[in-house]
Amino acid sequence: MTATPERSLPPTIFDVAKHARVAASSVSRVLNDHPDVSSSMREKVLAAAEELGYKPDFLAKSLRLGTTYSVGFVVRDISNPLFADIAKGAEDSLRHAGYSMILTNSEGSSELDAQYISLLRQRRVDALILAIESESHPATLEAMHLFPGPLVLLDREVPDLVASAVLSDHRSGVQDGVGHLLTLGHRRVGFVAGPVSIRVTRERRAGYVEAHERHEVAMQDELVRLGSYTWEYGYEQTLVLLDRAHPPTAIVAAGIQLVGGVLLALQERNITVGQDIALICCDEVDLMRVFNPPISAVTRDGYQLGACAAELLIEMLVNQAGPQVQHLPTTYVARGTSVPPVVREHMTDR
Amino acid sequence: MTATPERSLPPTIFDVAKHARVAASSVSRVLNDHPDVSSSMREKVLAAAEELGYKPDFLAKSLRLGTTYSVGFVVRDISNPLFADIAKGAEDSLRHAGYSMILTNSEGSSELDAQYISLLRQRRVDALILAIESESHPATLEAMHLFPGPLVLLDREVPDLVASAVLSDHRSGVQDGVGHLLTLGHRRVGFVAGPVSIRVTRERRAGYVEAHERHEVAMQDELVRLGSYTWEYGYEQTLVLLDRAHPPTAIVAAGIQLVGGVLLALQERNITVGQDIALICCDEVDLMRVFNPPISAVTRDGYQLGACAAELLIEMLVNQAGPQVQHLPTTYVARGTSVPPVVREHMTDR
Repeated sequence: MTATPERSLPPTIFDVAKHARVAASSVSRVLNDHPDVSSSMREKVLAAAEELGYKPDFLAKSLRLGTTYSVGFVVRDISNPLFADIAKGAEDSLRHAGYSMILTNSEGSSELDAQYISLLRQRRVDALILAIESESHPATLEAMHLFPGPLVLLDREVPDLVASAVLSDHRSGVQDGVGHLLTLGHRRVGFVAGPVSIRVTRERRAGYVEAHERHEVAMQDELVRLGSYTWEYGYEQTLVLLDRAHPPTAIVAAGIQLVGGVLLALQERNITVGQDIALICCDEVDLMRVFNPPISAVTRDGYQLGACAAELLIEMLVNQAGPQVQHLPTTYVARGTSVPPVVREHMTDR
Repeated sequence: MTATPERSLPPTIFDVAKHARVAASSVSRVLNDHPDVSSSMREKVLAAAEELGYKPDFLAKSLRLGTTYSVGFVVRDISNPLFADIAKGAEDSLRHAGYSMILTNSEGSSELDAQYISLLRQRRVDALILAIESESHPATLEAMHLFPGPLVLLDREVPDLVASAVLSDHRSGVQDGVGHLLTLGHRRVGFVAGPVSIRVTRERRAGYVEAHERHEVAMQDELVRLGSYTWEYGYEQTLVLLDRAHPPTAIVAAGIQLVGGVLLALQERNITVGQDIALICCDEVDLMRVFNPPISAVTRDGYQLGACAAELLIEMLVNQAGPQVQHLPTTYVARGTSVPPVVREHMTDR
């Protein structure tokens, strides 16, 4: 099997026009199913096109039909392990409906989010699924508003944008997890999370706050660390928490990208997870389940998230449905790191 | 900020032709920089285009110029954690050269690999980076051969295909790791890997074989399990190995997707990694470094792999360079799971 080089250029719309002895604009009108075309003109053009073997290519056809049966998925971070499941769920549903999916990865840069949304618009994808970096970045907002097709936001809230959304109920899962820690006797629960500028952080923090209220435990603001969803931030903020006069007896790593850094900081201080300190992670990777001991987590079904986003999109594309918002649950799974606090010297003064 | 609906249709090539009182084919020739165009014709057409505010759109421009400044990346499995680094490396280099990158994910389906290569061709991406599922699937081969632009294979070998390639030297890293286990006294090293139909498996197995030869240790074929790179396969084959009359004293999980299953099987049998059994994993995720104990690995630089693939592609796109093959190293990193064998009852008969 070898590539067939194109020796002569394929026939163009102008060749067809010449062959049919009509104007190129007439050929264009015929191929565009323009109503203002006589049937004799139509026959002449189609005959010429067939004789020359004229094949309007995919791009040209897209220009005419206005649909490309493809959907763009703009992702802020493909390295998030949950994303692979989300992408698989979206792709399976879209493929089933006859659409293909192409991805762009902006690695946490809002500027790139905006550029990729524009690129996908220029490539005439029919619709977008968006897991963007920021809900308020001006260029990203402008690019989303300019996009002519249906939009589905994944775990994001953008006021005034006409879009469907799939939202995870982070709040209830975190509330259950932190509630469990408080029930076990913890009174100082560290909370390390990303920026409040995105919904996921705000919801997780709300769950943390509500658990304290429900269990009538006073919250210590100094234990709440909100900054960024990175390994480095998890590492450095865990050290900050451990250096407090009254360090936490449990930590919530409120994002999968944080947990490695949290574990490294604990390892460096010779603090054994699930023994000296309790730990809950929001989201999970497979390895956490075979950790020694297995790590507790607030889990969600990434595949379902992606499939749900795709289905909302298909509803809008195929059935011209209006925008909808779907909520999906999270579940707290207690494992080996949901342990009671160790009574220490410095705890006796409480 | 709201979307601006297009109230009237933008001017077309035919409007420009009418306004300039020339044939549409002449407008096309001018816009295509065709050599056979008089300067008076060029001036007339460009003046008319400017007066009408004619803006050839992106797709139309792509049709003319034959370049879209975009590169497709066909990936068999975006859930492989190394892939995020590879994508970042490729994307950074491509962006620096003025190209954007779009991804497709085939989730281990060769059929989808073939479909996505065709889709990207139809979308006129200028070039492809390929980390395909199979090196011998007919439809994938045909799609690659039909693609008109430069190709770079990532850790794949496809005979007779004109393509550059970036290849990881899996062999030497595995040879070092298995060599270390043999030096520590292991004589029964289990080896669990994916299918021999892809290069990475063949190279890793070659490293395993060469380490035994070099250390003059007889290999036991029953300890070599080649099937698929999945969590399930790692789990089930570890159980098979543990059920042997003479089970291994060390295991090589020769793929990052296998290690979770291997660890789960060991956990279920109450076998403590880094104490009762040695373990080396090929490739790694961050969490492996904070495992208890940290897990030994044969590592490679995903970012460098991606950047190298992009650079080979840019050489071909921009400088019309011919296909090249680049080899990149792997490195064995001994951690807490590279321990000597435990002398057991059943080992005394050896």
